[in-house]
Amino acid sequence: MTDAPTIRRMANAIRALSMDAVEKANSGHPGMPMGMADVATVLFTKVLKYDATDPHWIDRDRFILSAGHGSMLLYSLLHLTGSKEMTIDQLKNFRQVGSKTPGHPERGHTESVETTTGPLGAGISNSVGLALAERILAAEYPTLFDHRTFAICSDGDLMEGVSQEAIAIAGHYKLSKLVFLYDDNGISIDGHTSLSDSVDQIARFKACGWNAVEIDGHDDEAIEAALRATEGSDKPTLIACKTIIGFGAPNKGGTEKVHGSALGADEVAAARKELDWPYPAFEVPGDVKSAWEQAGSRGADQRKEWESRYAALDAGVREDLERRLKGGLPKTFGKAMADYKAKLYAEPKEMATRKAGEAALTVVRSELPELVSGSADLTPSNNTLTKNMKVITPGDYGGSFMHWGIREHGMCGAINGMAIHGGILPVGSTFLVFSDYCRPPLRLAALMKIRVIQVFTHDSIGVGEDGPTHQPVEHLASLRAIPNLNVFRPADTIETAEAWEIAVASLERPSVLALTRQNLPQLRLKDAGENLTAKGAYELAGADGVAEVSLFASGSEVSLAVEAKKVLDAAGVKTRVVSVPCFELFFDQPGSYRAETIGTAPVKIAIEAAIRQGWDAIVGSSGGFVGMHSFGESGPAGEVYKKFGITADAVVELVKSLRGTAA
Amino acid sequence: MTDAPTIRRMANAIRALSMDAVEKANSGHPGMPMGMADVATVLFTKVLKYDATDPHWIDRDRFILSAGHGSMLLYSLLHLTGSKEMTIDQLKNFRQVGSKTPGHPERGHTESVETTTGPLGAGISNSVGLALAERILAAEYPTLFDHRTFAICSDGDLMEGVSQEAIAIAGHYKLSKLVFLYDDNGISIDGHTSLSDSVDQIARFKACGWNAVEIDGHDDEAIEAALRATEGSDKPTLIACKTIIGFGAPNKGGTEKVHGSALGADEVAAARKELDWPYPAFEVPGDVKSAWEQAGSRGADQRKEWESRYAALDAGVREDLERRLKGGLPKTFGKAMADYKAKLYAEPKEMATRKAGEAALTVVRSELPELVSGSADLTPSNNTLTKNMKVITPGDYGGSFMHWGIREHGMCGAINGMAIHGGILPVGSTFLVFSDYCRPPLRLAALMKIRVIQVFTHDSIGVGEDGPTHQPVEHLASLRAIPNLNVFRPADTIETAEAWEIAVASLERPSVLALTRQNLPQLRLKDAGENLTAKGAYELAGADGVAEVSLFASGSEVSLAVEAKKVLDAAGVKTRVVSVPCFELFFDQPGSYRAETIGTAPVKIAIEAAIRQGWDAIVGSSGGFVGMHSFGESGPAGEVYKKFGITADAVVELVKSLRGTAA
Repeated sequence: MTDAPTIRRMANAIRALSMDAVEKANSGHPGMPMGMADVATVLFTKVLKYDATDPHWIDRDRFILSAGHGSMLLYSLLHLTGSKEMTIDQLKNFRQVGSKTPGHPERGHTESVETTTGPLGAGISNSVGLALAERILAAEYPTLFDHRTFAICSDGDLMEGVSQEAIAIAGHYKLSKLVFLYDDNGISIDGHTSLSDSVDQIARFKACGWNAVEIDGHDDEAIEAALRATEGSDKPTLIACKTIIGFGAPNKGGTEKVHGSALGADEVAAARKELDWPYPAFEVPGDVKSAWEQAGSRGADQRKEWESRYAALDAGVREDLERRLKGGLPKTFGKAMADYKAKLYAEPKEMATRKAGEAALTVVRSELPELVSGSADLTPSNNTLTKNMKVITPGDYGGSFMHWGIREHGMCGAINGMAIHGGILPVGSTFLVFSDYCRPPLRLAALMKIRVIQVFTHDSIGVGEDGPTHQPVEHLASLRAIPNLNVFRPADTIETAEAWEIAVASLERPSVLALTRQNLPQLRLKDAGENLTAKGAYELAGADGVAEVSLFASGSEVSLAVEAKKVLDAAGVKTRVVSVPCFELFFDQPGSYRAETIGTAPVKIAIEAAIRQGWDAIVGSSGGFVGMHSFGESGPAGEVYKKFGITADAVVELVKSLRGTAA
Repeated sequence: MTDAPTIRRMANAIRALSMDAVEKANSGHPGMPMGMADVATVLFTKVLKYDATDPHWIDRDRFILSAGHGSMLLYSLLHLTGSKEMTIDQLKNFRQVGSKTPGHPERGHTESVETTTGPLGAGISNSVGLALAERILAAEYPTLFDHRTFAICSDGDLMEGVSQEAIAIAGHYKLSKLVFLYDDNGISIDGHTSLSDSVDQIARFKACGWNAVEIDGHDDEAIEAALRATEGSDKPTLIACKTIIGFGAPNKGGTEKVHGSALGADEVAAARKELDWPYPAFEVPGDVKSAWEQAGSRGADQRKEWESRYAALDAGVREDLERRLKGGLPKTFGKAMADYKAKLYAEPKEMATRKAGEAALTVVRSELPELVSGSADLTPSNNTLTKNMKVITPGDYGGSFMHWGIREHGMCGAINGMAIHGGILPVGSTFLVFSDYCRPPLRLAALMKIRVIQVFTHDSIGVGEDGPTHQPVEHLASLRAIPNLNVFRPADTIETAEAWEIAVASLERPSVLALTRQNLPQLRLKDAGENLTAKGAYELAGADGVAEVSLFASGSEVSLAVEAKKVLDAAGVKTRVVSVPCFELFFDQPGSYRAETIGTAPVKIAIEAAIRQGWDAIVGSSGGFVGMHSFGESGPAGEVYKKFGITADAVVELVKSLRGTAA
């Protein structure tokens, strides 16, 4: 029997695979995997709780590669620990169309990739949500959830502003099972980080309520000691690992030259020599491979013990947890929502859709214990803290509402993390205008196809006095531009309830609910027997005969369309109104439904208190538009609507002028 | 002669005006102005260098109200110090349509408002740019620039992630003339900040290279001492002012109830008593008003001295500085650009537009000493550091390129600050996909109508191997959605130069240049005698006869359209190609030009390696589209283009199919 290979030798397998794959692709980032190989090896062989044979085990420790450009580190680890999917051929196909090894790790595309990273800061904000989800679930299921979250992050991750939001949240909420392994290599794309940075990260993290230590990232004993020291901590921990980027590359290592391009054949050869790694490209010697595979199944016993605890659960509890983990809805959900809507039909309510959202959310929450709501310090405005929710506080995680602070980006990043953890349905909220701060994580949620729900209230110039800085005009269009994102702008209490129903059932698509500050009448007064919002657009009010005019509107402007229709009908102009609560779902409908809903009226007008972009797809480029053409203005909401000519009268006038042209 | 009023009494004028204005509007934020009135009074009466009679004096100290919701603090200060525009009637019209007193301060709308604030974090990142601009100008004009920047910020400002980016930049670059006055009132909208925050701000700022002290924000001697202590510092300074929000409101003060709504008549009356302020609403007693006016003109002598130094400048230097301050272009600029383009016509170049951008920027920079470029750590990729630029370093500000670090949001916020300072033309750069991080400041730049230029390279799936996290697909549409923003996507070297020409001359509109990673042929081979990009869209290649097909494309896809035209022409299908480098400018053209450019060909097809949204306005909702319908994929750029069917062949196929339908 031979000695077990050293940590360094096991780490060199990562180094070699990484530089070989980048070399073959002639594209990629060898520096980071080579620099952090020792840290990752200690983590995966000694500390991380996982079982490579069951990558979906819910109580596994989570490993997040926030520095996603170092994807070969992760792919190498998956290959070495025995992932069936991550074959050596996949490594050879690094960064090729159709491979499991894209340039940056993509959740859903590659098994065992916990989250999609690359845009810096994303992974660490996700990891905060993962750690929080664990605590929330542990409060409810103390025998089942007890795992940690480890994130490797880079200088870039810590320079991004969202890192501050994430760090502050983690520190405040005492997420002690969260560990950041900071690849402190001192190199960024432009050169040495001292070109642009002089933050003392240790002091910064301590100021935010973290433990923070500094170690030599190439000293396996120091790495292990630092990782062990985090066990039982009462705070999250930063381990700043001093590393040499491209460790092993004798000429380019330690410089920006190894960051983002292939080493070149000569340097690869020199590195093989330097690392005492005489094997051909993509070849891992048997002793190393078997030591890695052994490490990969280290957690098998822990997993089996966990399974026996799981099996010992009360059947009802287990069944409900299984449902939660799959994202299914309770059998009673449909009836609860139907009962709620029946009440609205019986007693129609004039209210702001943010208030209607609160009412619907109260029902949803009563049915879904996994729902965790929250707001970026706009709780009384967003109306997302319902009476049947309890606030989560540091150390007491048995609740369902998060005070995220004024941290929209961090909130959305953490919410993505909660969603990918499983067992939680996370809901965030802020003003629609601040969705701009949320775009990077919203985009990643759409790309990852995960179920997150963002409630964006104060959705137009109806914001009123707060003025143009707080009045969204371009945000509906710019959110609708994100692929695989449902943007709902419901017109009344019923559409709001319907949007909620769709959002919670959309397992592979995130949802945005854009809700008003101001009151709206209830327009839907009779049960249609189906969720009309699910079609994205539908005829709310038909014409009396062959329509001469079709009015299309969303949200608060649907009631303007209905008002205009009354005036036009009275004047003998046959008018129909189409409510358009969700573009994305409408464009998903069959062509025949779309054509029928758009109709053939010679005059088509879109009405939305926002810019026109996107509406041409419905009303055509020669269709009319009543909406915004500029930023808004500060003033009482009604005055502002008048000032920008978004009124029923303006619609009637436009109809007259277009009929003149059409005639 | 009576005694001069105390600081407290002068501050109470701010408190009374603020609560009266909010009360009259029944909307607004009284808490912050009442809490920070003492700090602001000391600053404006003892420290700030300004002359209210000349608010445009370029060497004035800058005062930024980053906590923009406290706008009544600023409006009160402007009124009290003698602004002609800010009459008492304006205060009475707080938050009304058409007033000079919108809910949040708006630069350009109200004189002496340095920047538009409200979205938290914006003001402090602007202030970093203001402080940097001062240093850069002082390096060039040491006798003319020597002023400081003071920003009042809130808990919310410091929770926003961009604050970290801004603080880190300021600390690294040793912006010692920058002072943050932190309104440490412990209250946010949701309640006490301890609900969501436990960051030690003093320690955090020290970790980022700042001085940081804590004072009682209601002790005028302590405030003055702290402000004096910042003079001659070698670092930026944080003064954390412990204050009581709504100071003076006996029942609601110190709670979230005074944050964002009117106090109510009873509490206003009680506060008048508490503050010993027996005057009617909106009335300021004579002693207080005259003390404030005296304070407002405190800086008159300093300004006059400055003017004599200015007058003593060499005439050529002064003339050029005047030009810079107005944003004009040197007389030689047009010729330099014409010469550059003449060279391109003489020797056409196939190159990536990011490289073409670098070449054009080299010419622009050689003409405009005020241009300061920079990159968020993608310098070698963005190609925005040209050979004729010198890098700015901490302590040596005589340069023209900033290494911003991996801080896109902070970069854009600081760039807005540099632009509003005057005398600088700031240019930023990152990847187009990361424009998502830049939206909040880009929106504010558009709202403020300022000249900033953002170079966003790697503008499509042409990014290739980095994959969908780095491949923009929705970003062109979502940027085009922002009002008053020119989004250029030039097709070749010539259009890139033209875009630069327009961008530098657009004094009231920010510009985005979306540039490719991959090489493109030069399509414009003959001098058209005018800047065609300025029309937003133009016929690049006409049909041989009456066009049956019009192809519209932007950027890298224009060459695909040209290729497709060749095939179609050969097949006898009369085809024209319209290049669309800038939607915003095209929609600004007269209707006749737009109609003529769109033309009447029965088949219209848009080609863009991005989503369709927006193109319907040009090709109509029944027009064809060759582009993206989803996120991208990791792989070599050419492979990815093929995979998503964005090829000349696909265009030809689509033409065939649409002609079939049309026929």
